[in-house]
Amino acid sequence: MSHRFDHDTTTRRLSDGEHEAELAAAWNIGPVPNGGYQAALSCRAALVELGAPDLVNVTSYFVGASAPGPTRLRVEVLKRGRSNSMASVSLAQGGRERVRSLVAAGDLGALTGLELHHEGPPEMPAPERCLHLSPAVTSAPEVLRQVELRLDPATAAFARGERGAATELRGWLRFADGRPADGLALAFFADVLPPTVFNHLGVMRWVPTLELTTQVRRRPAPGWVRLRMVTRHVSAGHFEEDGEIWDERGELVALSRQRAMILGE
Amino acid sequence: MSHRFDHDTTTRRLSDGEHEAELAAAWNIGPVPNGGYQAALSCRAALVELGAPDLVNVTSYFVGASAPGPTRLRVEVLKRGRSNSMASVSLAQGGRERVRSLVAAGDLGALTGLELHHEGPPEMPAPERCLHLSPAVTSAPEVLRQVELRLDPATAAFARGERGAATELRGWLRFADGRPADGLALAFFADVLPPTVFNHLGVMRWVPTLELTTQVRRRPAPGWVRLRMVTRHVSAGHFEEDGEIWDERGELVALSRQRAMILGE
Repeated sequence: MSHRFDHDTTTRRLSDGEHEAELAAAWNIGPVPNGGYQAALSCRAALVELGAPDLVNVTSYFVGASAPGPTRLRVEVLKRGRSNSMASVSLAQGGRERVRSLVAAGDLGALTGLELHHEGPPEMPAPERCLHLSPAVTSAPEVLRQVELRLDPATAAFARGERGAATELRGWLRFADGRPADGLALAFFADVLPPTVFNHLGVMRWVPTLELTTQVRRRPAPGWVRLRMVTRHVSAGHFEEDGEIWDERGELVALSRQRAMILGE
Repeated sequence: MSHRFDHDTTTRRLSDGEHEAELAAAWNIGPVPNGGYQAALSCRAALVELGAPDLVNVTSYFVGASAPGPTRLRVEVLKRGRSNSMASVSLAQGGRERVRSLVAAGDLGALTGLELHHEGPPEMPAPERCLHLSPAVTSAPEVLRQVELRLDPATAAFARGERGAATELRGWLRFADGRPADGLALAFFADVLPPTVFNHLGVMRWVPTLELTTQVRRRPAPGWVRLRMVTRHVSAGHFEEDGEIWDERGELVALSRQRAMILGE
């Protein structure tokens, strides 16, 4: 438990299904804890209750904005199965629900079956030739102190104050303190990159997430992961961000999709 | 209420949040009601409780197999908001939960904001030059009597007993009885096409869905919708199906993604 992500996703079990935890400000985007961090915290409580080794799938609906500080988690076990178990997790602060998640858990190491990949990992320069997006950059959020993020310069026009046509970001990511990635980390990583639409909009502003789902496919190898986040359709300000996460071996370890919203000016 | 889909998604409100309904066998795949149909039924109960006109986003986790017959739905309101409202819906039979859904609802007609589409609707032959996949075809499921489905022959090698490399299906879809599509219909349509992996596997067998999410983007125009379902990654038998649904005007009306599993032989 020497790593910050583990410390800041620790929950204290009060009774069957009831946990308390502390949302740490270290994972903020502006005044609000990162959505992926809140999803990971919810998953951790679910894994404890389900007694399952791996996060398989998680969906979070963001009911209301959280703030750093004490939080309560209520885990309802929906199913204990051979191939997977499921739970619903409610994350509340001050008696008001902020995030509701559904979680499937199981043993990813025990899966056997067809492998078929029509696409490989995204092509991008090595980390040392990518753009270091750090909190030193004006307006970069606090959460970026906890990770090392290197953006493919070809997708980072917005970070140079320019405006690109694409709504795609590619980058390398790992924890700043060397913690290896696992399923919980992937649920967080899926929400770390800046919004894909920044590059097109040419402005960086708050784009709240309505829903975020992460499919964990495989336990990641230690080291960097490589991410590709793509938006194909913005409909009246609502858009998807489709994420792929690949590990250092070049294996797909997770897919993610979120629905986010560009708020009116 | 002269259309079958409306009749078969009708719920009777017993008290605050408590509904009863009947899962009709007409929407079966083999012995099991179609997952999208169960999602649509759950959404309808949520819309009643939330008093919202449009389904915006729905995620269903399939906890256990349902069967045609009586079912109880319990709707928990999570949020009543200006831009959207949210609910959790539990669908149970015989006291056991079968499907748990999270639903966001609101007024899609009131949305204004950026429109940006990097891809248009899929190219495919007109419906009359596509393959009519009907229950007359051996092993085609019962649910296909309720819709007209026309598959692009280029993606339907499996229906000719052949084996294709692609894991993509394209097709036209509408209700057989002329019911126009709406958000609830799209939550169902997202799960109607045969699994994308049939084409590659060369066999048609049961591929259970773990989770299904549909993002409704716009109210569809009357008439055919056009669907494209794509699988890029099968990991130890687990795969995503990414769906796009376009209306007759050529506008994107929904995105969907499910996680399904090819079970061992």
